[in-house]
Parts: sequence; structure tokens; C-alpha cells
Amino acid sequence: MSFRYDIRLSGSGGQGLILMGIILAEAIGIYDGKFVSQTQSYGPEARGGSSKAEVVLSDTEIDYPKAMSLDLLLAMNQKSCDDYYMDLKNDGILIVDSTFVNQVPIQKAFRIPFTRIARENLKREMVANIVALGAIAKLTTIVTPKAIEAAVMARVPKGTEKLNRDALKAGMNAAMKAQKASVPQMLSERVDEDT
Amino acid sequence: MSFRYDIRLSGSGGQGLILMGIILAEAIGIYDGKFVSQTQSYGPEARGGSSKAEVVLSDTEIDYPKAMSLDLLLAMNQKSCDDYYMDLKNDGILIVDSTFVNQVPIQKAFRIPFTRIARENLKREMVANIVALGAIAKLTTIVTPKAIEAAVMARVPKGTEKLNRDALKAGMNAAMKAQKASVPQMLSERVDEDT
Repeated sequence: MSFRYDIRLSGSGGQGLILMGIILAEAIGIYDGKFVSQTQSYGPEARGGSSKAEVVLSDTEIDYPKAMSLDLLLAMNQKSCDDYYMDLKNDGILIVDSTFVNQVPIQKAFRIPFTRIARENLKREMVANIVALGAIAKLTTIVTPKAIEAAVMARVPKGTEKLNRDALKAGMNAAMKAQKASVPQMLSERVDEDT
Repeated sequence: MSFRYDIRLSGSGGQGLILMGIILAEAIGIYDGKFVSQTQSYGPEARGGSSKAEVVLSDTEIDYPKAMSLDLLLAMNQKSCDDYYMDLKNDGILIVDSTFVNQVPIQKAFRIPFTRIARENLKREMVANIVALGAIAKLTTIVTPKAIEAAVMARVPKGTEKLNRDALKAGMNAAMKAQKASVPQMLSERVDEDT
């Protein structure tokens, strides 16, 4: 069976999720050279202000580009976390923007305050999505840091390159911290399982 | 059976096709309130510089978001026209950017010089995609002019609103001319069929 990896990026309209999806897809498809599809769907409820973008990658051509069981869910607000965590696979990764997500329904999750980092460290809240991309590049193996940087640079407005490069790095650093913090938790889970 | 309408927007990377797809999908999904999915797919050939974005609309939830038989194909360069015209339905609509597409493989096609209009009338070649959106709004009934304008205004950079509104209008005007020019052709076809 061929390899397939399903990602959903979710949150509020205005958090830049569609641009995130495009950048992530272009990083994987153009710069890393894998097969990838990127989809957004709207229904009559789309006026409600929720937003999601999906990215599916594979080692062969993708016939069905809608995300199914999720390998990775990014939830940038509480509603999207509540709505979608059930779609995660058992070993799927949940990453939440802890600026807005207070209640995380599963234990194994990475809590990173993307929006607070963007607001306080970078002075531009709107790059929270790029901070999150940096974290995804660090917490998963689906995209190389080099590819994500090239894809970000190709899509962001001229004159904002430094800001966005800094945002990517801030996301990568925050992800490394979150990863270290999660090691004791993972270990204690293993102990629990053993007993 | 439920209504479904499949659109492919195609051309070169850098012609703004993905932004077009997003704007068209948001116009239909958010502002007109129908179901719509918007997808771009990349394979290892993505470095080649071709680009396509697909939009599928329906009156019910869309299970399969990849475009199948096309109701509408926009070809912004010769290669995409050559590669994709075979995917058109018999009664599908072909719209080409006649700035770059010289050879149109089927008779019933709308030839509009989107890039030349953008370059000469609007002094900004990069709005050729918005000119094309204006033409699509005029040549089809899939999106209302009001919705497409709202969606364009929500997505384009601040400070470029007037330019983009002018681009939309230029596209609508050019489409009306192309439509009038095609009437004799359509009539002669009908006469041919009758005889």
C-alpha cells in the first residue's frame, strides 16, 4: 500500500490557514518533490468564520484529495480543536495554538502559543501562521526546513522576508521546547502502560 | 442527481491561478452560499512551471473535490490549453488568454487577451487573473458579480482595491464584447447543424 499523510489546518477566518496550506503544499510538492494536494471546502455555513485547509501528501498520485483520518491536526482556536480532534488517527499528532486553545481533549498534544509568539516576539500577530509552519516543520518529518523556507519566501509579500524568516525560526524553536517538555509526559505514559 | 459544476484554471506559475481559485471559491462558497471545494495538486513535475487550480461547486456537499469532466476551462497559456481541452464536456466552455494562446483546438471558445488588457489598460500585468475572473463572472452563471467583487476585495492587498475593481470591470466588458462576437459564429453553427 502506498504512503499517505493527511493534514488539516483549522481555526478562524483571518488566521491565514489557506495561505498556510498553500505554502505547506508548495514546500512539499515543488521543493521536496512529492505528490501533494491542497483543498479548501466551503458550505453554506462558511459565513460562520471558521476556516480550514487540508493538505494530503503521498508517494504516488493522489486520487482522493480530501483529508480523511488525520495524521496531523493543527487547531488554531478552541472550536476547531473541539470539532476535529475526533478525526485524528490513534497515533496522529495534535498541535494547538495555546493562545486560544485552553482545553485540549487528548493527552498527547503539543501546546504552543503561536499567536502570542507572533504578537510579543515578532510584533506582528498576522505571522502566527508562519510561526505554526515552523513548528510543523520541526515536529514532523513531512517537510524539510529548507523547503518550507523556500516556499514561505516565494509566497509572502515583498519586504516581509525577514519578518517571515524570523517567524519560521521562532516556530521551530518553540517546537523544540515543546518537544522536550513532552518527553517526561511520554515516558510516564510508557510507564503507565507497562504497569 | 445533484448539480455539479467543474472548473479548471490553468496556465503558468506566476499567473496567479491559485489566488484566482481561492477568490472564485470564496465568492461562490462564502458570498453566494453554495457548496464549493477548491484544490491544487502538485507532483514531482511541479517544478516545470505549470500551474492549475480547480474549483468544484455543487448544491450538496462535495465528496470528490477533484475536477472531473470540465464545465469550464480557463487556459492562460498555450500548454495548458493543449494539455486540458480534451477534459472539457461537449457543452463545456473554453476561455483562453489570447495574449498567449494562438491555437485554439475547438471552435466554441472565448478568446480574450487578459494579459494584454492588464498590461495596456491597467498598467499592471499581474492583475490579468482578476481580469479573467471578471470575464468568468460575465460568461457563466456560476457566480454573481456582487459576490466576485466582495471576494476580490477581501483577498487583494490593501491599497490595490481600485486597481482590482477596475480589472474586474475590464474583464466583464471584454467578456461582453467576446460574447457578441461569438453570436454570428454560434448562429452559423446552428445553420450548419440544420442543413
